Amino acid sequence: MNIDSELLELCDKVSAASYKAIKAIVGTAEAYTTLYIGADGTPTKLIDDLSESAIILELQKDGRSMRVISEECGERIIGFKPEITLVIDPLDGTHNAAMGIPFYSISIAIADPSLSKIRFGYVKDFVTGDVYCAETDKGAYLNGQRIHPSIKSNLMEFCVSVYGYHPHVTKTTNLCQAVRRIRILGCVSLELCYVASGKLDAFVDVRGSLRLTDVAAGKLIVEEAGGKVSDEKGCKLILQDNVVNRVHMVATNGLLHQQILNITGRQ
Amino acid sequence: MNIDSELLELCDKVSAASYKAIKAIVGTAEAYTTLYIGADGTPTKLIDDLSESAIILELQKDGRSMRVISEECGERIIGFKPEITLVIDPLDGTHNAAMGIPFYSISIAIADPSLSKIRFGYVKDFVTGDVYCAETDKGAYLNGQRIHPSIKSNLMEFCVSVYGYHPHVTKTTNLCQAVRRIRILGCVSLELCYVASGKLDAFVDVRGSLRLTDVAAGKLIVEEAGGKVSDEKGCKLILQDNVVNRVHMVATNGLLHQQILNITGRQ
Repeated sequence: MNIDSELLELCDKVSAASYKAIKAIVGTAEAYTTLYIGADGTPTKLIDDLSESAIILELQKDGRSMRVISEECGERIIGFKPEITLVIDPLDGTHNAAMGIPFYSISIAIADPSLSKIRFGYVKDFVTGDVYCAETDKGAYLNGQRIHPSIKSNLMEFCVSVYGYHPHVTKTTNLCQAVRRIRILGCVSLELCYVASGKLDAFVDVRGSLRLTDVAAGKLIVEEAGGKVSDEKGCKLILQDNVVNRVHMVATNGLLHQQILNITGRQ
Repeated sequence: MNIDSELLELCDKVSAASYKAIKAIVGTAEAYTTLYIGADGTPTKLIDDLSESAIILELQKDGRSMRVISEECGERIIGFKPEITLVIDPLDGTHNAAMGIPFYSISIAIADPSLSKIRFGYVKDFVTGDVYCAETDKGAYLNGQRIHPSIKSNLMEFCVSVYGYHPHVTKTTNLCQAVRRIRILGCVSLELCYVASGKLDAFVDVRGSLRLTDVAAGKLIVEEAGGKVSDEKGCKLILQDNVVNRVHMVATNGLLHQQILNITGRQ
C-alpha cells in the first residue's frame, strides 16, 4: 500500500483513542444523553462528546500544528501555524452506536491545509475494525488491499443505500422501484466506503443535508477507488469550509451515475 | 441464564460449523454463485449451500433423532423417530454476507416436535459473535443477559426496520413519514432480535413474503423478551409447516403495535 504512512499512523492513533473512550457505553441509554447543541447545529450526545474530547487530546499530543474541523466543536487550532487541516466526524452513526446497532465509524479527511486540497481520507469501522483509506492519485484501500467499485451496469441489479429518507418520499420511492435492493444503514462515511469497495453499488443522499465532516473522507475514498461523486445535479461536489452548511451528494460505481441522478435529482 | 443448556450447546455447535464453512468466502463474488433452486423456491447461493451442508453434517454427528426443516434442502429426517424438529435458516442475510456487508446470521428454532410448540429460539450474529436465545416461559437473552424491548411509546421516536420494500411503496412511505428513523438492514432474524433487545422499536415486513425459516426463532425471542408479534392484521402469526408458504409479520416493542398495523396493514 503506497500511502502516506505518517498520516495513516496519525489516523490510527486518533481512532484508537476515540474507540477507547466510547466502547464502554456503546449500546447504553446513557450514550444518547444530549449534552449541548454542537457546532454543526445538531444535538451532541454524550458518546459524540467523549469521542471528540479523546481525539482532541490525542491530536494535542502529536506535536504538529494543525487546524481541526470537527462536528461538535467546530474549528480548533492546535499549535501556531497549521500545516494540515483535519476534518473529523468523531463518531458517524451516533444513533446506531448508542443503540448497539453495529454500523458506526470515525471519519477523518486531511487537507494541506486548504480544504480544496483534501489529500488523505480515512474511515474506520469501529465494529469490524476495518480501515478504509485513500490518498490523492494513489488509490483507495481496505486493510491495505486496493479496492474498486462494483462493475454492475444494470440498475435492476443495484443495491443502493439511502440517506435521509424521512421528508423526501417521492425521490426515495422512485429509487426503490428502479433498483434491486435498498439498504438504510445510518452511517454515511461507511456507506461511501461500501460504494468504493463494491459492497454497495451507489449511495444517494435524498435529503441534501450532509455536512463536510460526513463526506470529506468518503468522497476521496470513492473517487480514488474509481467511483464517481457529484452533487444532485451531477456537478462537482463543493465542500464548504465549515460544519454548518449542507451538501447534497450522490456516489456511484461510475457506470450508472447519470441514471441514478435522473431518478433522484430535483423534482 | 435459566435456559436449556443442551439445546443451547447444540445450536452453538451448529452455528460454529456453519461459520467455519463460510468465513473464507464472505465478501467474494464466488460466494454469490447460484447453484440450484432451493426447497424454498429461491436461488441457493454457494455460501448458503456450504453453510447448510456443514450444519447437516454436524447434526448427523449429534446422535439425537431429529427432523430438520432448512431453507435450501427443505425437510430432512436424521435417525428414525425424531424427538425434536429444528427449523434452520443456515445463512440469513445471504446478500450481505456475499457482498461483505457485516450483517448476517444463523437462525435456529427448536420444536418438540410439532411446530405448534416451538420452545427454543437461537440467532447468532456471525459478525459480532452475539448470541440471542429464548426458551418458552423462560425469557430471552443476549450473551446470557436478559433482554427487553424498548419502552418508547411515541411513534415519532421510533426506529423501525423494514423488510421487502421494492413492490410495496405505499405502505413503506406511510411508515417512513410516521416514525423517526428507518433502517433497511437485510437480515430478518437479526432485526427481530434487535426489536427484542430494544435496538430497534419495530420490524415491519411490508411484503408478506417471509418464510418459516426466517422468523421461527426470532418470533419466540421477541415474545419472550416482552415484545409483540402478529400478522399484518394483528392476528396470531401462524407458522406453516414447510419452507414454501409465506407469512406476513409485524414485531414491535408491544407499546404501539396497533398504531404500526394501522399504518402498514392491508391497503
